[in-house]
Amino acid sequence: MTRTRFHQNLDDLKERLLVMAGMAEQATQRAIEAYRVGDVSICDLVMRSEPAINRMERDIDQMALDLLAMEQPMAIDLRFILSVIKINADLERVGDRAVKIAERVRDLQTVPAIELPVDIPKLAMLAATMVRNALQAFIDGDASMAEKVLTMDDEVDELNRAIFRTLTGCIKAQPEHTQQALNVLLIARNLERVGDHATNIAEDVIFWVRGADVRHHLATG
Amino acid sequence: MTRTRFHQNLDDLKERLLVMAGMAEQATQRAIEAYRVGDVSICDLVMRSEPAINRMERDIDQMALDLLAMEQPMAIDLRFILSVIKINADLERVGDRAVKIAERVRDLQTVPAIELPVDIPKLAMLAATMVRNALQAFIDGDASMAEKVLTMDDEVDELNRAIFRTLTGCIKAQPEHTQQALNVLLIARNLERVGDHATNIAEDVIFWVRGADVRHHLATG
Repeated sequence: MTRTRFHQNLDDLKERLLVMAGMAEQATQRAIEAYRVGDVSICDLVMRSEPAINRMERDIDQMALDLLAMEQPMAIDLRFILSVIKINADLERVGDRAVKIAERVRDLQTVPAIELPVDIPKLAMLAATMVRNALQAFIDGDASMAEKVLTMDDEVDELNRAIFRTLTGCIKAQPEHTQQALNVLLIARNLERVGDHATNIAEDVIFWVRGADVRHHLATG
Repeated sequence: MTRTRFHQNLDDLKERLLVMAGMAEQATQRAIEAYRVGDVSICDLVMRSEPAINRMERDIDQMALDLLAMEQPMAIDLRFILSVIKINADLERVGDRAVKIAERVRDLQTVPAIELPVDIPKLAMLAATMVRNALQAFIDGDASMAEKVLTMDDEVDELNRAIFRTLTGCIKAQPEHTQQALNVLLIARNLERVGDHATNIAEDVIFWVRGADVRHHLATG
Protein backbone atom coordinates (compact mmCIF):
# COMPACT_ATOMS: atom_id res chain seq x y z
CA MET A 1 0.00 0.00 0.00
CA THR A 2 1.52 3.33 -0.99
CA ARG A 3 1.56 6.33 1.29
CA THR A 4 -1.01 8.04 -0.93
CA ARG A 5 -3.35 5.06 -0.78
CA PHE A 6 -2.94 5.08 2.99
CA HIS A 7 -4.01 8.70 3.15
CA GLN A 8 -6.96 7.97 0.89
CA ASN A 9 -7.95 5.33 3.44
CA LEU A 10 -7.62 7.86 6.26
CA ASP A 11 -9.99 10.13 4.33
CA ASP A 12 -12.45 7.26 3.94
CA LEU A 13 -12.25 6.62 7.69
CA LYS A 14 -12.98 10.28 8.39
CA GLU A 15 -15.87 10.22 5.92
CA ARG A 16 -17.36 7.15 7.60
CA LEU A 17 -17.05 8.78 11.02
CA LEU A 18 -18.99 11.75 9.72
CA VAL A 19 -21.78 9.45 8.54
CA MET A 20 -21.79 7.92 12.03
CA ALA A 21 -21.98 11.44 13.49
CA GLY A 22 -24.95 12.21 11.25
CA MET A 23 -26.75 9.11 12.51
CA ALA A 24 -26.13 10.00 16.17
CA GLU A 25 -27.19 13.61 15.60
CA GLN A 26 -30.33 12.57 13.80
CA ALA A 27 -31.28 10.21 16.64
CA THR A 28 -30.86 13.01 19.17
CA GLN A 29 -32.84 15.49 17.09
CA ARG A 30 -35.63 12.98 16.62
CA ALA A 31 -35.77 12.22 20.35
CA ILE A 32 -36.16 15.91 21.10
CA GLU A 33 -38.73 16.32 18.35
CA ALA A 34 -40.64 13.40 19.90
CA TYR A 35 -40.54 15.25 23.23
CA ARG A 36 -41.62 18.55 21.68
CA VAL A 37 -44.66 17.14 19.87
CA GLY A 38 -45.31 14.16 22.19
CA ASP A 39 -45.16 11.61 19.39
CA VAL A 40 -44.47 7.98 20.34
CA SER A 41 -43.97 6.92 16.72
CA ILE A 42 -40.87 9.14 16.53
CA CYS A 43 -39.62 7.39 19.69
CA ASP A 44 -39.89 4.09 17.83
CA LEU A 45 -37.79 5.51 14.99
CA VAL A 46 -35.09 6.45 17.50
CA MET A 47 -35.13 2.98 19.09
CA ARG A 48 -34.89 1.34 15.69
CA SER A 49 -31.82 3.40 14.76
CA GLU A 50 -29.75 1.87 17.58
CA PRO A 51 -28.66 -1.39 15.91
CA ALA A 52 -27.51 0.48 12.78
CA ILE A 53 -25.48 2.89 14.91
CA ASN A 54 -23.90 -0.04 16.79
CA ARG A 55 -23.02 -1.77 13.52
CA MET A 56 -21.50 1.41 12.16
CA GLU A 57 -19.41 1.76 15.32
CA ARG A 58 -17.98 -1.73 14.82
CA ASP A 59 -17.31 -1.10 11.11
CA ILE A 60 -15.37 2.06 11.87
CA ASP A 61 -13.37 0.31 14.60
CA GLN A 62 -12.50 -2.43 12.14
CA MET A 63 -11.43 0.09 9.46
CA ALA A 64 -9.23 1.83 12.02
CA LEU A 65 -7.77 -1.48 13.12
CA ASP A 66 -7.02 -2.49 9.52
CA LEU A 67 -5.26 0.80 8.91
CA LEU A 68 -3.12 0.35 12.00
CA ALA A 69 -2.29 -3.21 10.97
CA MET A 70 -1.47 -2.57 7.34
CA GLU A 71 0.85 0.34 7.69
CA GLN A 72 3.19 1.64 10.37
CA PRO A 73 1.62 5.07 10.58
CA MET A 74 3.52 8.21 11.48
CA ALA A 75 2.83 9.75 14.88
CA ILE A 76 0.37 12.32 13.53
CA ASP A 77 -1.62 9.68 11.61
CA LEU A 78 -1.62 7.42 14.67
CA ARG A 79 -3.08 10.18 16.77
CA PHE A 80 -5.70 10.79 14.10
CA ILE A 81 -6.71 7.13 14.00
CA LEU A 82 -6.87 6.97 17.80
CA SER A 83 -9.01 10.10 17.84
CA VAL A 84 -11.38 8.49 15.37
CA ILE A 85 -11.67 5.40 17.59
CA LYS A 86 -12.44 7.51 20.63
CA ILE A 87 -14.84 9.87 18.86
CA ASN A 88 -16.58 6.82 17.40
CA ALA A 89 -17.23 5.46 20.90
CA ASP A 90 -18.62 8.81 22.03
CA LEU A 91 -20.92 9.06 19.03
CA GLU A 92 -22.29 5.59 19.76
CA ARG A 93 -23.09 6.78 23.26
CA VAL A 94 -24.77 9.90 21.96
CA GLY A 95 -27.03 7.46 20.12
CA ASP A 96 -27.62 5.63 23.43
CA ARG A 97 -28.61 8.91 25.09
CA ALA A 98 -31.11 9.53 22.30
CA VAL A 99 -32.67 6.13 23.03
CA LYS A 100 -32.84 6.93 26.76
CA ILE A 101 -34.58 10.22 25.96
CA ALA A 102 -37.04 8.43 23.68
CA GLU A 103 -37.82 5.99 26.52
CA ARG A 104 -38.62 8.90 28.81
CA VAL A 105 -40.78 10.56 26.16
CA ARG A 106 -42.70 7.31 25.76
CA ASP A 107 -43.26 7.13 29.51
CA LEU A 108 -44.44 10.75 29.45
CA GLN A 109 -47.25 9.79 27.05
CA THR A 110 -48.70 7.44 29.70
CA VAL A 111 -49.54 10.33 32.04
CA PRO A 112 -51.47 13.57 31.50
CA ALA A 113 -49.43 16.21 29.68
CA ILE A 114 -48.59 19.22 31.83
CA GLU A 115 -46.64 22.42 31.27
CA LEU A 116 -43.36 22.55 33.18
CA PRO A 117 -41.47 25.87 33.32
CA VAL A 118 -38.17 24.47 31.99
CA ASP A 119 -36.58 25.04 28.61
CA ILE A 120 -35.67 21.55 27.39
CA PRO A 121 -35.47 22.63 23.71
CA LYS A 122 -32.89 25.26 24.68
CA LEU A 123 -30.80 22.66 26.52
CA ALA A 124 -31.18 20.31 23.54
CA MET A 125 -30.10 23.07 21.17
CA LEU A 126 -27.01 23.81 23.26
CA ALA A 127 -26.03 20.14 23.49
CA ALA A 128 -26.60 19.60 19.75
CA THR A 129 -24.55 22.70 18.93
CA MET A 130 -21.72 21.35 21.09
CA VAL A 131 -21.75 18.08 19.15
CA ARG A 132 -21.86 19.87 15.81
CA ASN A 133 -19.06 22.29 16.74
CA ALA A 134 -16.91 19.46 18.10
CA LEU A 135 -17.33 17.64 14.78
CA GLN A 136 -16.63 20.81 12.81
CA ALA A 137 -13.45 21.22 14.86
CA PHE A 138 -12.61 17.63 13.91
CA ILE A 139 -13.29 18.25 10.21
CA ASP A 140 -11.19 21.43 10.21
CA GLY A 141 -8.54 20.14 12.65
CA ASP A 142 -9.25 23.33 14.61
CA ALA A 143 -8.15 23.11 18.27
CA SER A 144 -9.36 26.61 19.15
CA MET A 145 -12.88 25.76 17.97
CA ALA A 146 -12.66 22.59 20.04
CA GLU A 147 -11.72 24.70 23.06
CA LYS A 148 -14.89 26.77 22.62
CA VAL A 149 -16.89 23.56 22.96
CA LEU A 150 -15.34 23.02 26.39
CA THR A 151 -16.59 26.46 27.44
CA MET A 152 -20.10 25.69 26.23
CA ASP A 153 -20.17 22.68 28.54
CA ASP A 154 -20.24 25.02 31.55
CA GLU A 155 -23.33 26.69 30.09
CA VAL A 156 -25.03 23.31 29.64
CA ASP A 157 -24.16 22.29 33.20
CA GLU A 158 -25.50 25.58 34.55
CA LEU A 159 -28.77 25.29 32.62
CA ASN A 160 -29.10 21.69 33.74
CA ARG A 161 -28.65 22.70 37.38
CA ALA A 162 -31.28 25.41 36.98
CA ILE A 163 -33.70 22.88 35.47
CA PHE A 164 -33.00 20.53 38.39
CA ARG A 165 -33.81 23.28 40.91
CA THR A 166 -36.97 24.30 39.07
CA LEU A 167 -38.25 20.74 38.78
CA THR A 168 -37.51 20.05 42.44
CA GLY A 169 -39.71 23.07 43.24
CA CYS A 170 -42.45 21.88 40.86
CA ILE A 171 -42.53 18.45 42.49
CA LYS A 172 -42.75 19.90 45.99
CA ALA A 173 -45.56 22.23 44.94
CA GLN A 174 -47.46 19.63 42.86
CA PRO A 175 -46.45 16.10 43.89
CA GLU A 176 -49.20 14.70 41.65
CA HIS A 177 -46.96 15.66 38.72
CA THR A 178 -43.91 13.81 40.05
CA GLN A 179 -43.78 11.32 37.20
CA GLN A 180 -43.86 14.01 34.55
CA ALA A 181 -41.25 16.12 36.32
CA LEU A 182 -38.92 13.16 36.89
CA ASN A 183 -39.11 12.16 33.25
CA VAL A 184 -38.24 15.69 32.18
CA LEU A 185 -35.44 15.76 34.74
CA LEU A 186 -33.96 12.59 33.25
CA ILE A 187 -34.30 13.99 29.73
CA ALA A 188 -32.29 17.00 30.90
CA ARG A 189 -29.63 14.71 32.43
CA ASN A 190 -29.36 12.78 29.20
CA LEU A 191 -28.92 15.99 27.24
CA GLU A 192 -26.22 17.03 29.69
CA ARG A 193 -24.54 13.68 28.93
CA VAL A 194 -24.71 14.47 25.20
CA GLY A 195 -22.85 17.67 26.05
CA ASP A 196 -20.28 15.59 27.97
CA HIS A 197 -19.72 13.41 24.92
CA ALA A 198 -19.24 16.53 22.79
CA THR A 199 -16.66 17.65 25.36
CA ASN A 200 -14.87 14.30 25.04
CA ILE A 201 -14.86 14.66 21.26
CA ALA A 202 -13.48 18.21 21.52
CA GLU A 203 -10.72 16.96 23.84
CA ASP A 204 -9.83 14.24 21.35
CA VAL A 205 -9.60 16.84 18.58
CA ILE A 206 -7.25 18.92 20.75
CA PHE A 207 -5.14 15.81 21.47
CA TRP A 208 -4.93 15.06 17.79
CA VAL A 209 -4.19 18.63 16.61
CA ARG A 210 -1.76 19.43 19.43
CA GLY A 211 0.10 16.28 18.43
CA ALA A 212 0.33 17.83 14.99
CA ASP A 213 1.63 21.06 16.48
CA VAL A 214 4.28 19.24 18.48
CA ARG A 215 5.44 17.35 15.42
CA HIS A 216 5.51 20.55 13.40
CA HIS A 217 7.52 22.25 16.13
CA LEU A 218 10.03 19.41 16.17
CA ALA A 219 10.28 19.33 12.41
CA THR A 220 10.96 23.05 12.05
CA GLY A 221 12.65 23.80 15.40
CA MET B 1 13.08 -3.13 19.99
CA THR B 2 12.93 -6.91 20.09
CA ARG B 3 9.67 -8.80 20.05
CA THR B 4 10.26 -9.82 23.68
CA ARG B 5 10.85 -6.24 24.75
CA PHE B 6 7.65 -5.28 22.97
CA HIS B 7 5.72 -7.89 24.94
CA GLN B 8 7.32 -6.68 28.16
CA ASN B 9 5.98 -3.25 27.24
CA LEU B 10 2.51 -4.70 26.64
CA ASP B 11 2.67 -6.21 30.14
CA ASP B 12 3.65 -2.83 31.57
CA LEU B 13 0.70 -1.25 29.77
CA LYS B 14 -1.65 -3.85 31.24
CA GLU B 15 -0.13 -3.31 34.70
CA ARG B 16 -0.65 0.43 34.40
CA LEU B 17 -4.25 -0.04 33.33
CA LEU B 18 -4.86 -2.15 36.45
CA VAL B 19 -3.49 0.65 38.62
CA MET B 20 -5.91 3.00 36.84
CA ALA B 21 -8.72 0.52 37.52
CA GLY B 22 -7.77 0.45 41.20
CA MET B 23 -8.00 4.24 41.36
CA ALA B 24 -11.43 4.29 39.70
CA GLU B 25 -12.71 1.48 41.93
CA GLN B 26 -11.43 3.19 45.06
CA ALA B 27 -13.14 6.45 44.09
CA THR B 28 -16.44 4.62 43.61
CA GLN B 29 -16.13 2.72 46.88
CA ARG B 30 -15.32 5.91 48.74
CA ALA B 31 -18.29 7.74 47.22
CA ILE B 32 -20.60 4.96 48.38
CA GLU B 33 -18.95 4.89 51.81
CA ALA B 34 -19.55 8.65 52.00
CA TYR B 35 -23.21 8.02 51.21
CA ARG B 36 -23.48 5.20 53.75
CA VAL B 37 -22.03 7.15 56.65
CA GLY B 38 -22.97 10.65 55.45
CA ASP B 39 -19.40 11.95 55.62
CA VAL B 40 -18.54 15.04 53.54
CA SER B 41 -14.79 14.66 54.17
CA ILE B 42 -14.84 11.40 52.19
CA CYS B 43 -16.58 13.30 49.37
CA ASP B 44 -13.64 15.68 49.33
CA LEU B 45 -11.25 12.74 48.98
CA VAL B 46 -13.21 11.55 45.96
CA MET B 47 -13.15 15.00 44.34
CA ARG B 48 -9.41 15.29 44.93
CA SER B 49 -8.74 11.95 43.21
CA GLU B 50 -10.08 13.22 39.88
CA PRO B 51 -6.98 15.06 38.58
CA ALA B 52 -4.77 12.02 39.33
CA ILE B 53 -7.17 9.75 37.46
CA ASN B 54 -7.21 12.13 34.49
CA ARG B 55 -3.41 12.26 34.44
CA MET B 56 -3.20 8.49 34.58
CA GLU B 57 -5.62 8.24 31.64
CA ARG B 58 -3.37 10.47 29.54
CA ASP B 59 -0.23 8.55 30.57
CA ILE B 60 -1.77 5.25 29.54
CA ASP B 61 -2.94 6.69 26.21
CA GLN B 62 0.58 7.93 25.58
CA MET B 63 2.10 4.54 26.42
CA ALA B 64 -0.35 2.86 24.04
CA LEU B 65 0.43 5.39 21.34
CA ASP B 66 4.17 4.87 21.75
CA LEU B 67 3.74 1.11 21.44
CA LEU B 68 1.73 1.52 18.27
CA ALA B 69 4.32 3.91 16.85
CA MET B 70 7.44 1.92 17.70
CA GLU B 71 6.43 -1.45 16.43
CA GLN B 72 4.12 -2.78 13.77
CA PRO B 73 2.05 -4.95 16.10
CA MET B 74 0.41 -8.17 15.03
CA ALA B 75 -3.40 -8.16 14.81
CA ILE B 76 -3.89 -9.72 18.24
CA ASP B 77 -1.56 -7.20 19.91
CA LEU B 78 -3.24 -4.36 18.05
CA ARG B 79 -6.60 -5.47 19.37
CA PHE B 80 -5.14 -5.67 22.85
CA ILE B 81 -3.74 -2.14 22.67
CA LEU B 82 -7.03 -0.79 21.31
CA SER B 83 -8.90 -2.54 24.11
CA VAL B 84 -6.62 -0.89 26.64
CA ILE B 85 -7.31 2.52 25.11
CA LYS B 86 -11.06 1.96 25.28
CA ILE B 87 -11.07 0.42 28.76
CA ASN B 88 -8.91 3.33 29.91
CA ALA B 89 -11.54 5.82 28.74
CA ASP B 90 -14.28 3.88 30.53
CA LEU B 91 -12.30 3.75 33.77
CA GLU B 92 -11.79 7.50 33.66
CA ARG B 93 -15.56 7.87 33.36
CA VAL B 94 -16.13 5.52 36.28
CA GLY B 95 -14.02 8.03 38.21
CA ASP B 96 -16.28 10.83 36.92
CA ARG B 97 -19.36 8.93 38.15
CA ALA B 98 -17.77 8.64 41.59
CA VAL B 99 -17.34 12.42 41.65
CA LYS B 100 -20.98 12.93 40.63
CA ILE B 101 -22.08 10.61 43.44
CA ALA B 102 -19.90 12.51 45.91
CA GLU B 103 -21.54 15.76 44.79
CA ARG B 104 -24.98 14.30 45.50
CA VAL B 105 -23.85 13.00 48.90
CA ARG B 106 -22.59 16.48 49.74
CA ASP B 107 -25.94 17.97 48.76
CA LEU B 108 -27.70 15.36 50.92
CA GLN B 109 -25.83 16.67 53.98
CA THR B 110 -27.50 20.08 53.56
CA VAL B 111 -30.96 18.66 54.26
CA PRO B 112 -32.32 16.54 57.13
CA ALA B 113 -31.35 12.88 56.83
CA ILE B 114 -34.32 10.58 56.18
CA GLU B 115 -34.71 6.86 55.64
CA LEU B 116 -35.67 5.92 52.08
CA PRO B 117 -36.74 2.34 51.35
CA VAL B 118 -34.21 1.74 48.56
CA ASP B 119 -31.11 -0.43 48.65
CA ILE B 120 -28.36 1.80 47.25
CA PRO B 121 -25.55 -0.31 48.81
CA LYS B 122 -26.88 -3.36 46.96
CA LEU B 123 -26.91 -1.46 43.66
CA ALA B 124 -23.41 -0.18 44.41
CA MET B 125 -22.24 -3.71 45.19
CA LEU B 126 -23.67 -5.02 41.91
CA ALA B 127 -22.07 -2.22 39.88
CA ALA B 128 -18.71 -2.64 41.64
CA THR B 129 -18.82 -6.40 41.07
CA MET B 130 -19.47 -5.81 37.37
CA VAL B 131 -16.41 -3.57 37.15
CA ARG B 132 -14.25 -6.06 39.07
CA ASN B 133 -15.42 -9.03 36.99
CA ALA B 134 -14.91 -7.13 33.74
CA LEU B 135 -11.36 -6.38 34.81
CA GLN B 136 -10.80 -9.97 35.91
CA ALA B 137 -12.01 -11.06 32.47
CA PHE B 138 -9.48 -8.63 31.02
CA ILE B 139 -6.65 -9.97 33.21
CA ASP B 140 -7.49 -13.58 32.32
CA GLY B 141 -8.47 -12.88 28.71
CA ASP B 142 -11.70 -14.71 29.53
CA ALA B 143 -14.54 -13.91 27.12
CA SER B 144 -17.10 -16.12 28.90
CA MET B 145 -16.52 -14.26 32.17
CA ALA B 146 -16.96 -11.02 30.23
CA GLU B 147 -20.26 -12.34 28.90
CA LYS B 148 -21.50 -12.86 32.46
CA VAL B 149 -20.91 -9.18 33.10
CA LEU B 150 -23.32 -8.37 30.28
CA THR B 151 -25.99 -10.47 32.01
CA MET B 152 -25.43 -8.67 35.31
CA ASP B 153 -26.19 -5.40 33.60
CA ASP B 154 -29.83 -6.48 33.23
CA GLU B 155 -29.98 -7.01 36.99
CA VAL B 156 -28.57 -3.55 37.62
CA ASP B 157 -31.05 -1.98 35.20
CA GLU B 158 -33.94 -3.81 36.85
CA LEU B 159 -32.90 -2.76 40.36
CA ASN B 160 -32.43 0.78 39.13
CA ARG B 161 -35.94 0.82 37.66
CA ALA B 162 -37.36 -0.50 40.94
CA ILE B 163 -35.53 2.24 42.85
CA PHE B 164 -36.93 4.81 40.43
CA ARG B 165 -40.49 3.58 41.02
CA THR B 166 -40.06 3.48 44.79
CA LEU B 167 -38.60 6.98 44.94
CA THR B 168 -41.36 8.35 42.69
CA GLY B 169 -43.83 6.95 45.21
CA CYS B 170 -41.90 8.43 48.15
CA ILE B 171 -41.88 11.87 46.57
CA LYS B 172 -45.62 11.78 45.86
CA ALA B 173 -46.34 10.65 49.44
CA GLN B 174 -43.91 13.06 51.10
CA PRO B 175 -43.06 15.95 48.79
CA GLU B 176 -41.16 17.66 51.61
CA HIS B 177 -38.47 15.00 51.06
CA THR B 178 -38.14 15.70 47.33
CA GLN B 179 -34.55 16.92 47.55
CA GLN B 180 -33.39 13.86 49.44
CA ALA B 181 -35.22 11.47 47.11
CA LEU B 182 -33.90 13.19 43.96
CA ASN B 183 -30.34 13.03 45.23
CA VAL B 184 -30.71 9.33 45.93
CA LEU B 185 -32.31 8.84 42.52
CA LEU B 186 -29.32 10.48 40.84
CA ILE B 187 -26.90 8.39 42.91
CA ALA B 188 -28.73 5.31 41.60
CA ARG B 189 -28.48 6.60 38.00
CA ASN B 190 -24.75 7.18 38.42
CA LEU B 191 -24.30 3.65 39.73
CA GLU B 192 -26.23 2.36 36.74
CA ARG B 193 -23.76 4.29 34.56
CA VAL B 194 -20.88 2.58 36.36
CA GLY B 195 -22.53 -0.70 35.37
CA ASP B 196 -22.73 0.57 31.77
CA HIS B 197 -19.01 1.28 31.79
CA ALA B 198 -18.35 -2.23 33.12
CA THR B 199 -20.46 -3.50 30.21
CA ASN B 200 -18.36 -1.49 27.77
CA ILE B 201 -15.18 -2.94 29.30
CA ALA B 202 -16.58 -6.47 29.05
CA GLU B 203 -17.45 -5.88 25.38
CA ASP B 204 -13.90 -4.68 24.73
CA VAL B 205 -12.53 -7.83 26.36
CA ILE B 206 -14.75 -9.95 24.12
CA PHE B 207 -13.59 -7.98 21.08
CA TRP B 208 -9.97 -8.55 22.05
CA VAL B 209 -10.29 -12.25 22.94
CA ARG B 210 -12.53 -13.13 19.99
CA GLY B 211 -9.88 -11.55 17.80
CA ALA B 212 -7.47 -14.04 19.38
CA ASP B 213 -9.88 -16.91 18.71
CA VAL B 214 -10.24 -15.93 15.08
CA ARG B 215 -6.50 -15.78 14.67
CA HIS B 216 -6.09 -19.13 16.41
CA HIS B 217 -8.75 -20.64 14.18
CA LEU B 218 -7.01 -19.38 11.06
CA ALA B 219 -3.61 -20.58 12.27
CA THR B 220 -4.79 -24.09 13.03
CA GLY B 221 -7.57 -24.44 10.48
